[in-house]
Amino acid sequence: MGALHEGHLSLARQAKSQCDVCVVSIFVNPTQFAPNEDLSRYPRPLQHDLELLAGEGVDAVFLPTNASMYPAGFGSFVMPSPVGLSLEGQSRPDHFRGVTTVVMKLLQIVPASAAFFGQKDFQQLRVIQDMVRDLNVPTEIVPCPIVRDEDGLAMSSRNRYLSDEQRVTALAIPRALSRAAAAVAAGEINTAAIEQIMLESLSDCDSVDYAVVADSESLQPMRKFERPAVALIAARVGNTRLLDNRVL
Amino acid sequence: MGALHEGHLSLARQAKSQCDVCVVSIFVNPTQFAPNEDLSRYPRPLQHDLELLAGEGVDAVFLPTNASMYPAGFGSFVMPSPVGLSLEGQSRPDHFRGVTTVVMKLLQIVPASAAFFGQKDFQQLRVIQDMVRDLNVPTEIVPCPIVRDEDGLAMSSRNRYLSDEQRVTALAIPRALSRAAAAVAAGEINTAAIEQIMLESLSDCDSVDYAVVADSESLQPMRKFERPAVALIAARVGNTRLLDNRVL
Repeated sequence: MGALHEGHLSLARQAKSQCDVCVVSIFVNPTQFAPNEDLSRYPRPLQHDLELLAGEGVDAVFLPTNASMYPAGFGSFVMPSPVGLSLEGQSRPDHFRGVTTVVMKLLQIVPASAAFFGQKDFQQLRVIQDMVRDLNVPTEIVPCPIVRDEDGLAMSSRNRYLSDEQRVTALAIPRALSRAAAAVAAGEINTAAIEQIMLESLSDCDSVDYAVVADSESLQPMRKFERPAVALIAARVGNTRLLDNRVL
Repeated sequence: MGALHEGHLSLARQAKSQCDVCVVSIFVNPTQFAPNEDLSRYPRPLQHDLELLAGEGVDAVFLPTNASMYPAGFGSFVMPSPVGLSLEGQSRPDHFRGVTTVVMKLLQIVPASAAFFGQKDFQQLRVIQDMVRDLNVPTEIVPCPIVRDEDGLAMSSRNRYLSDEQRVTALAIPRALSRAAAAVAAGEINTAAIEQIMLESLSDCDSVDYAVVADSESLQPMRKFERPAVALIAARVGNTRLLDNRVL
């Protein structure tokens, strides 16, 4: 979606290291935004994005328009697997349908052998993995690690919405995930207790959509900690909704 | 779906005339059957089908299994465009979702430059055309004309369910379509009157799901006849549900 940061650039580097040709798409996809969300104010610093991508030596940038992606009469969608129903699927009901639909379109237009997705949007990655598997899309989905700023905040295009003060508050999110990991390392197996630790860490956030331990395959909550597991947080600082996660 | 007849073979011939390599898929797709439908008794004369295809000189036959197409955990679907909501979509609510999903899978597995579909399943063709357009599938969808037996009945794998007597009754269906076309040729522009002519022709059928004049793009009913238009019928003779249509 553009507004590129080091997290995005790490995907381009990974693609270049693994593939002969690297194509980057920049498209602020309207179908994954709800009417009350930040589609119109989502940052679009295109010139700067293109300079960053030129610096990485990517081979092509695909910049479709809304009208070319969703012409009048558009009406077929890819429905995500049940992995999309929990968490973000609860908070943003049509969000993943927009994501799977646009990723399917992009992979048909640019038939890549591999596509690179950040683990920061963990549930999105799982939904796309399921789509590619279920619909036999001949593209390898390559998960790439979360890139964090020096202070620990996961990089996100939405971080630029944060004031200095809000940014300090937002650091509670990676701290909550670290504490969850520490609790697991100390032998905690009651996920309700782990979630309580996260919620306490997040008390300065303006709201918490979820702070949970889930099966990292199904994204379903679990009572007793068991791997594969992931802790996931969605919280709001001011008007900015932030996501983060940590595999446990 | 196999149980091949001259209609299917005409698709193979058209493909061979237009393409370098012709692949035929045979797969009785479970996701397009409702629980009360004829999935288990759908005819599967595989050996005979393969002989017919060998006779046409097709290059390959793709025969996937249910387990390979729908392994445990399968859960991502392609939702058809609103063209799928009327007519068959009313009579068979999840049918087109099964069709679009399996056709998407087949086109990912066998990335054909062109795919050939009979106009006998007119609404299915429209739904697939919309899917390919909306999701940017790089395959040309080629509509092929309905093939009829000498008595006028549109060829269908389900015709073999009909007794001799039922078959005579079923001829009311192409007759109804011919009368609709004759009414249009005579200047009738009231579609309700055209539909009444079709319903009267179908009075010997055991039930009629629909007998309508619709916009052939949107598949929506129209009051005043206007091209592009198509007359579509779904009617039951005994337990056998038969489809037919005629572009007007």
